Amino acid sequence: MALIVQKYGGTSLANVEKIRHVAEHVIRTKQRGNDVLVVASAMAGETDRLIKLARSIMDPPDERELDVVTSSGEQVSSGLLAMMIKSLGHDAISFQGHQIRILTSNNYSKARIVKIDDEKIKKALSEGKIVVVAGFQGVDEEGNVTTLGRGGSDLTAVALTAVLKADVCELYKDDVDGVYTTDPSICSNARKLKKISYDEMLEMASLGSKVLQARAVGFAKKFRVPIHVRPTSRPEEEGTWIVEEDETMTEMEDVLISGVTYDKNQAKITVIHVPDRPGIAAKIFTPLGEEGIVVDMIVQNVSTEGYTDMTFTVPRSDFKKALRITEDIAKELGAKGVTFDDRIAMVSLVGVGMKTHAGVASKMFSTLAREGINIMMISTSEIRVSCVIDEKYTELAVRAIHDAFNLGEEK
Amino acid sequence: MALIVQKYGGTSLANVEKIRHVAEHVIRTKQRGNDVLVVASAMAGETDRLIKLARSIMDPPDERELDVVTSSGEQVSSGLLAMMIKSLGHDAISFQGHQIRILTSNNYSKARIVKIDDEKIKKALSEGKIVVVAGFQGVDEEGNVTTLGRGGSDLTAVALTAVLKADVCELYKDDVDGVYTTDPSICSNARKLKKISYDEMLEMASLGSKVLQARAVGFAKKFRVPIHVRPTSRPEEEGTWIVEEDETMTEMEDVLISGVTYDKNQAKITVIHVPDRPGIAAKIFTPLGEEGIVVDMIVQNVSTEGYTDMTFTVPRSDFKKALRITEDIAKELGAKGVTFDDRIAMVSLVGVGMKTHAGVASKMFSTLAREGINIMMISTSEIRVSCVIDEKYTELAVRAIHDAFNLGEEK
Repeated sequence: MALIVQKYGGTSLANVEKIRHVAEHVIRTKQRGNDVLVVASAMAGETDRLIKLARSIMDPPDERELDVVTSSGEQVSSGLLAMMIKSLGHDAISFQGHQIRILTSNNYSKARIVKIDDEKIKKALSEGKIVVVAGFQGVDEEGNVTTLGRGGSDLTAVALTAVLKADVCELYKDDVDGVYTTDPSICSNARKLKKISYDEMLEMASLGSKVLQARAVGFAKKFRVPIHVRPTSRPEEEGTWIVEEDETMTEMEDVLISGVTYDKNQAKITVIHVPDRPGIAAKIFTPLGEEGIVVDMIVQNVSTEGYTDMTFTVPRSDFKKALRITEDIAKELGAKGVTFDDRIAMVSLVGVGMKTHAGVASKMFSTLAREGINIMMISTSEIRVSCVIDEKYTELAVRAIHDAFNLGEEK
Repeated sequence: MALIVQKYGGTSLANVEKIRHVAEHVIRTKQRGNDVLVVASAMAGETDRLIKLARSIMDPPDERELDVVTSSGEQVSSGLLAMMIKSLGHDAISFQGHQIRILTSNNYSKARIVKIDDEKIKKALSEGKIVVVAGFQGVDEEGNVTTLGRGGSDLTAVALTAVLKADVCELYKDDVDGVYTTDPSICSNARKLKKISYDEMLEMASLGSKVLQARAVGFAKKFRVPIHVRPTSRPEEEGTWIVEEDETMTEMEDVLISGVTYDKNQAKITVIHVPDRPGIAAKIFTPLGEEGIVVDMIVQNVSTEGYTDMTFTVPRSDFKKALRITEDIAKELGAKGVTFDDRIAMVSLVGVGMKTHAGVASKMFSTLAREGINIMMISTSEIRVSCVIDEKYTELAVRAIHDAFNLGEEK
């Protein structure tokens, strides 16, 4: 008998009819002889409604109290889903973060899972119950309510799969039916991947693919949790498996590259002609970090006559704050000035095959050149090449690269 | 330094502006040198919304899961109120039932409070924080979420006052500014009572006065918790104190009677000409109790030639079910038949002075007679006389009795 963890997003639980649809699939899974644990997100729109309400009272809201307020969304949906399963004739029970003690760190709204007690869950499963766990929430050592950050229910599901040594973590999505080689709204021939490695999925999640929360993928990788991304609307359909890298992923030519992603949510800032002394990078990036600004790509040009240029990207939402801080530091460091561009996009190619195949990066660069697209910055990892370009060329670039690497569906 | 417990109802917390108004009064109370603990109800309409949502999934809803769902209302409002207090510059912290462990029995939706850990609350108070507790909710021994029944936040406030040995439990109401001698919408000269004893308030709560939950009053009586009912809109105004009976309540003529109440939410059922054998009362009322129907007034006429009539009242919402059950039993018992009337009202006179003053009941009866109102049933306790009459005479009866006992404001 297998133990299957299923997680449903907010859109999949948006109303009574959708909750019924989910409950039916959960029961079907159970009736095939599996034990089933379900992780519920808040009903679509609920978390936003609660955050808005909190902001109308205090902006930014007190972090501890905000978690108290927002975690109520999953409390409601988990109770309702358990009810629906029972009303359809199968026994079920809901658990909140404080009941199975999903113990987390106490950094509110982005807490890390430390430990989960599995006793109550195991007992309920052994009694034949379908267990419904409220996603997104936990408690710290003191019993304070915490939440795991946006998309945190994915993390709850992956963590429970690891702790319970469940056979698979099925993540049901309402808007996608799996992981694609690129955004199907840009490339009509984008292909759904049968499987993808943790590392590739991690890169794709960090690079703007909205399918999964990057932290959940990282956690899955660490504990080797097999993830299956599937569509809620057609829950019997195979989606995309996210698993450990194996030979089939690198040895055959057609799986060299997994996908092309893009991220329009970045802005770049350049500190021009700054004296190139040891420690200037720290001087620039420490104050940004202290303000909670996540710097993504950093490029430093070679030094000319003791001066250099330093360019980096930040999330567009932090752009104004980052620019102000950088201008202050630039003055302190005696730099010539600061330039910026908040109309950029980062286009990335991801694939474990890159490790063993030369020429991937250069093929990407020449593809962009052929389309007349100027590359502003380049950054690479073992399984990724990213280029920063003018935002207006994003779709053109994605389509050209997708075609150049033959990622599309066979015609 | 006094410790003051304040409880605010859902209407008092219905929107951001009202939450601000409440927070300001809480802070004022604190700034006068008191420690303050606030109990928050769910925002007006929220509990009904959640119950409706649950019913649209499962009707009647699973009891355990319903409590998970409905308790979220107080979770949200307690978090928001703590935030509002902080945004106005005063430190505050919210606690849920599971955090301060409001331990209850495990009968869902009507759990009884067993114990409350006061450690976290005392620590927070000693740090100068205003403590906000979510009303209505608790947890059982197993950590399951429970709720205390409609109006349960009153009970939370009274219980916390008892456990913390606080100086007063202030119950702020949005619709009334205290306890009146009768319904001001019926008698324009109804007078606000300065104080009333626990026993009188208990009778009035059970008899249809909506001001307080009867269980909360019973709890307050048991632990001698002084209650002060006050208006949220004018929070500095004196309302009505609910306290232990003292001499001033019985010795002066003008406080002989505390009030006149009425209840239109009853129906009466009569089993006619039933053989008068030992045990017939049990035969009639046991099946009703088993179906959860609360029988209020019971009157048995004297036996004539071995036969008697048995009349009782039930809540109007249970009337049809009660009638069906009674008709079955009547057949079994060989009674002549069953009659009923669901257009009745119970009008009651309440006052501790009754204990020492004769003639109160007869004065009430003659007052009704003078108005031509027929009395269908009579029931009395040490501090109460209740008459069942035709529903259409309710207002007339209340006004006549209120005047006869000079309960109104001096003109």
